[in-house]
Amino acid sequence: MLRKEYDHIILLAHGSPDPIWKQPFESLYNQITLSYGANNVSLAFMELTIPTLEETVASLDKEITRIAVLPLFLAVGRHLRQDVPAQIEALQTDRLQIDLLPPIGDDAAVKEAMQMAIAKYLGKVE
Amino acid sequence: MLRKEYDHIILLAHGSPDPIWKQPFESLYNQITLSYGANNVSLAFMELTIPTLEETVASLDKEITRIAVLPLFLAVGRHLRQDVPAQIEALQTDRLQIDLLPPIGDDAAVKEAMQMAIAKYLGKVE
Repeated sequence: MLRKEYDHIILLAHGSPDPIWKQPFESLYNQITLSYGANNVSLAFMELTIPTLEETVASLDKEITRIAVLPLFLAVGRHLRQDVPAQIEALQTDRLQIDLLPPIGDDAAVKEAMQMAIAKYLGKVE
Repeated sequence: MLRKEYDHIILLAHGSPDPIWKQPFESLYNQITLSYGANNVSLAFMELTIPTLEETVASLDKEITRIAVLPLFLAVGRHLRQDVPAQIEALQTDRLQIDLLPPIGDDAAVKEAMQMAIAKYLGKVE
């Protein structure tokens, strides 16, 4: 059983017309599946890149009834406030519940790592 | 003197039509300025949100001649391969050099923090 009683986690990235753009997200996904297997986690894209959220949900085992969507976004804007909730609303059924989690940029450790990444360029050379 | 001999770092986020979207980037910027001051670092946006990259560069002290742009992006797509380099090209002069750094999502510690943030949802409950 997964934490928070989800049957499956979908990592959702934005999508891009650039075919190379998705590589870091695929790399992150592959790292995760090395530790946790590919059964409980998928990678999908909001737009422009496949698989879409809709395709990913459609491909899941029918026994899965509680999904969490974890946005690989740094901030919540129109996409996460309007577009993705509308996609999720259209995908939910009486037997399939889909929750939208806060974006990964909200995570305290991710924020701290970004601060440190910036600080590398600002640290004084003695 | 800043590391890598930059006079100034511009943190560049995407921009959004949603006015609340920019808050996590402003929060990150404010945290950075608490430790490093606001003299050597600015926050700008590629589109839709102000200040723009152009406005930010124009506002800098004329003694600044080497700028690094650090994209607050998770991946390199059309924006960082075409749009931002074109903006930078238009802003550079004989006396002002602007380098485009890899996006913050490329940082090893940021990647690791994202893996851990995802793992929280995948860790088995014993």
